[in-house]
Amino acid sequence: MTETAFPQPTIESEWKSDKPFVLASGETLDPLILRYAIYGDLNKFPDNAMLVCHALSGSARVGDWWKPMLGVEKESDTPHSLSNARECTICINVIGSCYGSTSPRTVNPATGRNFGADFPLITIGDIVRAQHELLMHLGVTHLSLVIGGSIGGMQAVQWAIEFPEMCERIVAIGTSPLPALGLALNHLQRAAIRLDANWTEGNYETDHAPNHGLALARQIAMCSYKSPALFDERFGREPDHRSEEDPHVSIDERFCVAGYLDYQGEIFKSRFDANSYIVLSKAMDLFDPVRDARGSIQKAFGHIKARVTLIGITSDWLFPPAHVARFAAQMRAAGVRADYLEFESAHGHDGFLADAKRLAPFVAAALA
Amino acid sequence: MTETAFPQPTIESEWKSDKPFVLASGETLDPLILRYAIYGDLNKFPDNAMLVCHALSGSARVGDWWKPMLGVEKESDTPHSLSNARECTICINVIGSCYGSTSPRTVNPATGRNFGADFPLITIGDIVRAQHELLMHLGVTHLSLVIGGSIGGMQAVQWAIEFPEMCERIVAIGTSPLPALGLALNHLQRAAIRLDANWTEGNYETDHAPNHGLALARQIAMCSYKSPALFDERFGREPDHRSEEDPHVSIDERFCVAGYLDYQGEIFKSRFDANSYIVLSKAMDLFDPVRDARGSIQKAFGHIKARVTLIGITSDWLFPPAHVARFAAQMRAAGVRADYLEFESAHGHDGFLADAKRLAPFVAAALA
Repeated sequence: MTETAFPQPTIESEWKSDKPFVLASGETLDPLILRYAIYGDLNKFPDNAMLVCHALSGSARVGDWWKPMLGVEKESDTPHSLSNARECTICINVIGSCYGSTSPRTVNPATGRNFGADFPLITIGDIVRAQHELLMHLGVTHLSLVIGGSIGGMQAVQWAIEFPEMCERIVAIGTSPLPALGLALNHLQRAAIRLDANWTEGNYETDHAPNHGLALARQIAMCSYKSPALFDERFGREPDHRSEEDPHVSIDERFCVAGYLDYQGEIFKSRFDANSYIVLSKAMDLFDPVRDARGSIQKAFGHIKARVTLIGITSDWLFPPAHVARFAAQMRAAGVRADYLEFESAHGHDGFLADAKRLAPFVAAALA
Repeated sequence: MTETAFPQPTIESEWKSDKPFVLASGETLDPLILRYAIYGDLNKFPDNAMLVCHALSGSARVGDWWKPMLGVEKESDTPHSLSNARECTICINVIGSCYGSTSPRTVNPATGRNFGADFPLITIGDIVRAQHELLMHLGVTHLSLVIGGSIGGMQAVQWAIEFPEMCERIVAIGTSPLPALGLALNHLQRAAIRLDANWTEGNYETDHAPNHGLALARQIAMCSYKSPALFDERFGREPDHRSEEDPHVSIDERFCVAGYLDYQGEIFKSRFDANSYIVLSKAMDLFDPVRDARGSIQKAFGHIKARVTLIGITSDWLFPPAHVARFAAQMRAAGVRADYLEFESAHGHDGFLADAKRLAPFVAAALA
């Protein structure tokens, strides 16, 4: 086994609810299917679980994308939580995602065809309440920690709001209601998908998916996930050496940063679904607990019992540190024990993934 | 006459060279047509001209888009330059632009059809040398000031490099070689145009132009032209009241910032050409005097005679102030009298246009 291998879950499974799931909008999601992974073992109560919430393009297999957070260096290590080696880690694929839970690719029993563009509007609240159904099924009534970055962090905060009795600690990284520029960029990413000739109002077949639009959406997002300084340091104004292109010679030949983005778009379109992207980026847009509470900070956060740690990433310009800090201050104003910490990273918003090796001990220290 | 009316040029005309124009690449542009506007009157020598260089989507009609820089408040005022009421202002539409100079919409005499995608790769140097041909035709051998923002500023600097004897003062605002994030965003804007089903490799007819792609390109650019703080202040997380949409109700309904961007895309596609956009954004990418001089700062800038003022805009994240300051420092290292000043504006890169009323006296003071 090499150090680069990914730790495997103890359990990786799919749960299907025996009843339809009612969304905040009043609409119904049927079937409710949730793909999940458990690293380590639930004890008999079970009260030794922590929940990791994944971000927009993640899956339940947290060992594949956030290995340092599992507290393992090598695949042979026993996965354990950040704070306690006897705990186990659960991650549940969000509804709307194409990694196994109910999504636009799921067959709609009412029509016999994929939901496609008929997949309903969902919110972070819906995502969390669906996860709760699964935890009830598993008998998990207590979470020592709920943690995530980006829309994973939104879920973590939403857990504290929706199920205050269950949550002991919350850690959310690079998380606040999305600022206006983020709303703008999400809108343009969805526009990119819809610009693809294969879009056909969302009712495409999998083998004629709007993948060029999806790739462009991902590329726009990648620019917002990374910091300008990192792009300068990593790519500068270098030509795309890998493809031996010289941008000074023709309109189509590229700089290095363009080659990088094209590569990112290419790998993304083979692993994601355009309708899922639209549904989840919209859920990200809508996260706004104070607005949900009709403007009352007290109603939004007042009943939170968890201790909350919000972490801003210094070079994050999609969820700027000042916004994350303000979000924590709002919680404190409602009486929540909410700390704000700043994590130094050059990686921008993506720092919670790209700098996970440094983030894990930073989070562990915050929790100690 | 109201204060909002635009000052009219004394002369607005088109000049066609009687010989083909040789580009830096060795390719030939034929015909060389330049659309230009003159505000005020050239004297008999003529040695009373200043040159304004327009940015990517601008035209020769500087009175329409940079009125405060003409030193006029009302249409009834006599237009005069920043420094001297006896001077006159010339602005020349750049080659590649769809506002009257040779562009992808021009008929290629070799084929009898529009250049379209066959329009050659051009550089800021080509743009400036073409402008020089026209000034020679007009008899203008001295420019008291060459000024511009963004790729207008690139032209101003290039003027000092290419024609050191002609240029007395240079003012370039929000200008440096484009950093990596800017190269990335320009690449994605061109990708957006090419994603449009009407793109047809650039050989589209005007009435079947890739205008949805062009609109998306403009929208991406608009995000980079404005500051995140301005978007927060102006739009926040407000729904798009104007269209009475509620983003919380359906996937398609929009936030205010999305409605704004859609409007910007809509008006842009009626006034610009996709091939022009590609050609000019590529020219912007390639501006890099030190690279052109094979890495020698001395060779790049050493023969500049003009006094140069580079102005960074505090909230500009496309051409960050630090990059503009470094560009000035490179010039000073080559012995140029190059100052760096910072203009306080919340408008981001767009500050040179959106805050022009405040910028004009700031520039005048710098020139005094």
